[in-house]
Amino acid sequence: MKQQTSIRARIHEIIFGAETKAGKAFDIALLILILFSVVAVMLESVREIREQHGLLLRWIEWIITILFTLEYLLRVYSINKPTKYIFSFMGIIDLLSTIPTYISLIVAGPQYLLTIRALRLLRVFRVLKLTRFVGEAALLKEALKASRYKISVFLLTVLITVVLVGTLLYIVEGPENGFKSIPLSIYWAIVTLTTVGYGDIAPQTPLGQIIASFVMVMGYGIIAVPTGIVTVAMSDAKKRVQSNTRSCSNCLADEHHDHALYCYNCGQEL
Amino acid sequence: MKQQTSIRARIHEIIFGAETKAGKAFDIALLILILFSVVAVMLESVREIREQHGLLLRWIEWIITILFTLEYLLRVYSINKPTKYIFSFMGIIDLLSTIPTYISLIVAGPQYLLTIRALRLLRVFRVLKLTRFVGEAALLKEALKASRYKISVFLLTVLITVVLVGTLLYIVEGPENGFKSIPLSIYWAIVTLTTVGYGDIAPQTPLGQIIASFVMVMGYGIIAVPTGIVTVAMSDAKKRVQSNTRSCSNCLADEHHDHALYCYNCGQEL
Amino acid sequence: MKQQTSIRARIHEIIFGAETKAGKAFDIALLILILFSVVAVMLESVREIREQHGLLLRWIEWIITILFTLEYLLRVYSINKPTKYIFSFMGIIDLLSTIPTYISLIVAGPQYLLTIRALRLLRVFRVLKLTRFVGEAALLKEALKASRYKISVFLLTVLITVVLVGTLLYIVEGPENGFKSIPLSIYWAIVTLTTVGYGDIAPQTPLGQIIASFVMVMGYGIIAVPTGIVTVAMSDAKKRVQSNTRSCSNCLADEHHDHALYCYNCGQEL
Amino acid sequence: MKQQTSIRARIHEIIFGAETKAGKAFDIALLILILFSVVAVMLESVREIREQHGLLLRWIEWIITILFTLEYLLRVYSINKPTKYIFSFMGIIDLLSTIPTYISLIVAGPQYLLTIRALRLLRVFRVLKLTRFVGEAALLKEALKASRYKISVFLLTVLITVVLVGTLLYIVEGPENGFKSIPLSIYWAIVTLTTVGYGDIAPQTPLGQIIASFVMVMGYGIIAVPTGIVTVAMSDAKKRVQSNTRSCSNCLADEHHDHALYCYNCGQEL
Repeated sequence: MKQQTSIRARIHEIIFGAETKAGKAFDIALLILILFSVVAVMLESVREIREQHGLLLRWIEWIITILFTLEYLLRVYSINKPTKYIFSFMGIIDLLSTIPTYISLIVAGPQYLLTIRALRLLRVFRVLKLTRFVGEAALLKEALKASRYKISVFLLTVLITVVLVGTLLYIVEGPENGFKSIPLSIYWAIVTLTTVGYGDIAPQTPLGQIIASFVMVMGYGIIAVPTGIVTVAMSDAKKRVQSNTRSCSNCLADEHHDHALYCYNCGQEL
Repeated sequence: MKQQTSIRARIHEIIFGAETKAGKAFDIALLILILFSVVAVMLESVREIREQHGLLLRWIEWIITILFTLEYLLRVYSINKPTKYIFSFMGIIDLLSTIPTYISLIVAGPQYLLTIRALRLLRVFRVLKLTRFVGEAALLKEALKASRYKISVFLLTVLITVVLVGTLLYIVEGPENGFKSIPLSIYWAIVTLTTVGYGDIAPQTPLGQIIASFVMVMGYGIIAVPTGIVTVAMSDAKKRVQSNTRSCSNCLADEHHDHALYCYNCGQEL
Repeated sequence: MKQQTSIRARIHEIIFGAETKAGKAFDIALLILILFSVVAVMLESVREIREQHGLLLRWIEWIITILFTLEYLLRVYSINKPTKYIFSFMGIIDLLSTIPTYISLIVAGPQYLLTIRALRLLRVFRVLKLTRFVGEAALLKEALKASRYKISVFLLTVLITVVLVGTLLYIVEGPENGFKSIPLSIYWAIVTLTTVGYGDIAPQTPLGQIIASFVMVMGYGIIAVPTGIVTVAMSDAKKRVQSNTRSCSNCLADEHHDHALYCYNCGQEL
Repeated sequence: MKQQTSIRARIHEIIFGAETKAGKAFDIALLILILFSVVAVMLESVREIREQHGLLLRWIEWIITILFTLEYLLRVYSINKPTKYIFSFMGIIDLLSTIPTYISLIVAGPQYLLTIRALRLLRVFRVLKLTRFVGEAALLKEALKASRYKISVFLLTVLITVVLVGTLLYIVEGPENGFKSIPLSIYWAIVTLTTVGYGDIAPQTPLGQIIASFVMVMGYGIIAVPTGIVTVAMSDAKKRVQSNTRSCSNCLADEHHDHALYCYNCGQEL
């Protein structure tokens, strides 16, 4: 019994941890395998490669699937609360990394399974979880979270603008100039406002071009708004992190200004 | 008489307010109805859907219009100063949400009424008025207002640049390369400077391409200017909101934390 | 003699000043005339309008030219140092606003004169010179000037990148895919790096598309650099303006920190 | 012997230094020669010019190559540690500036050598090394270095997004709408997310256009993230440069002006 437990613990340490040498090696091997499998999915979609190296790609696919299945089973076996893991976001991704290949045994040529197989890429996050990227990502996330209401206001304004402009252009240009319906015109408005500008649909009438010009200048200018929001939020998030280091010796309050002389909480000289 | 007044007050509370349960339910119902009606307008513009489900869409349109008409009449009835409401921005939008459908009874196939019907989307702002988005929107508005002169200078520079560049390209490229007139060339200059770049008009001569390159690099770079303006204005607006309210009575230092009890500068109790 | 001087002074006051009622009226009239003349130039370039209303446009052109000529002569007459004015930037623009029409009497159909006539738009700056836009423009200018070396480094990096990428794509794609020469490939690189993306030239080979992807992500990302530069410079420029208001009572030094308690120059308590 | 040493020292001073008059003249001559040679490479790629002035361009090429070869030999001769120079980045660039022309004697028409010849442009950095651009470039570099982990997180997010979106669009649109393979779809996703938008590939189905709209709005919005990162990093880098050097010995306050004589916080002489 004890023996078995220690094997479980050892497996857990290797698969979930990154402190031991074996754990690190496992992480790197997994990272390579994930990237390898995603590249295989990509190559399979290229017709020339599929026709020439189809068999090789199928073999690679099966080897990767079996390795991922083994890993999944070991994860379920070694973890203390398997149910929690199985229904966690990462657990579902891990499972989805194996299933599509087995389904392809039953149903032939399932094109749409490619997307699910590409989801394997999300497993990259599992490996990155244990690096110093996390701290930086947390800072970014905090800044974005702090400005979520401002960004919502911004996105709502963009949304209402594209709907109104799209409808207007549908009336002004009409189906004969490529603006076949309001949804398509809204699509055009998004393409224009975000300065993507494919050019598959473009206003042909002078009035349409004048309205489009306003939308472009607007789209060009209002990018400043989310940028301003995020910059200020990031600056704040950073200050908070930096000022946390200095704390009052009397009441332990932190977040002091850089130039503070007295604690804002208890009045103690810092 | 008193009964009637209380009915009026109750209607007012439900329609204009959002504090009561009924008021909140009304707001949500209105929001759904608005989005529903805008989606109906969009779908009607798609030829396939219009031909297949035309009758259904007409029915939906009439139901929504009658509901909006009822709501409008109740608003006029329940408010204390009806004239002020009727001629307010939101009052006009509310009225315009109902009229187009009635006009379509008299005049057949009025395509241009679609835009007016799409204006219903602006009614979304009425519902949002009562949420916490307002505070954030106010901050954004203040930041934009504070930087309105700087933004005007920027827009004026952009305007003069596109007029001069447009004229120049008209001379350099000429009608044979798609630059058919100066207004069209200015349109091209806007499309280029804002980095939209449809590609329906593009310089063909080496000289035209050299000038276009300068415009692109300029357009790419000067986006930094409004971004800088808005970022600084937002940073200021935020600081003002955070610190404006309180300053130390002893040393006049401001920028205190929201939860500060003592001045960080002199230790004085706030 | 004195009479004449006072007439000269009065003309000078009206034409160059904006303090008197007549001076303001003159400025507004001039602004309208400038915009009117630029619109006339634009319309003349549209073939349909030129063919239908050619005579009218010629009349308008001559009236505007004669008014501008009169104004120019009055400026030269009323100013104290005519030579300095004539060879100043604005003086040359003023002269160029009149000459093209006279030249068209001698040489027929001079298309390229349109650009010179469009330069009239620059005269708008003369009128704006006297408004509150100037202060804001000065702040922007100072911020841009302060960051001119950083922006130069940025532009140089962009320049070297597009030359190297352009050459590389010329080799990879070659003339058969639209990359006909290195200068054209550099043009493509600029179109791509600045995210304009016309699509008249686009990489067709996988290798070309991979390199193009790197250029796009790079172009998408490095816009952050000038934005950061300008934002920081603007923030600094503003602080300097703001802190200028507070100055030491002892030594008159300014530019104190917002939270400074003592003068950094003489140690005097503020 | 001594004579020879002094000649070597003199050559070293001229070629590597910029303090003497001759050194500066050499730098300027080299800068002109580099730009001249790069322009020659560009012009050679234009078919019309190559056919008409091919002989002239070959002559120029040989003259430049011989001058660069001489310079390279003098550099190796005059420097104290030739091996270190030869294998340094700049040493290799210097060598690569001469070799391609000699190779073209043996192998005919080596198109791909053009890229290597264009690398000569990198030699521009050698000349700039000695100007005041370096300080500014260092500040930019420090800011970018400080934010390298945040930028990596951002780029990784972009990368994973384009892979997933590309795969999704490949399934939704399919080869019949131009999305021929997943790598090509990923290329499209990059073109769209970075707001380049060539338009050679564009979604045709409603679902594809809806997904593309999300990608565009996302691409439009998340540019705010690297901008925020770099702006905050630049602001920090600048503050550190300005204030790091000095802090008050009495109260430890920093962020003093460059020309401050007394501490702004306690009045202590600095």
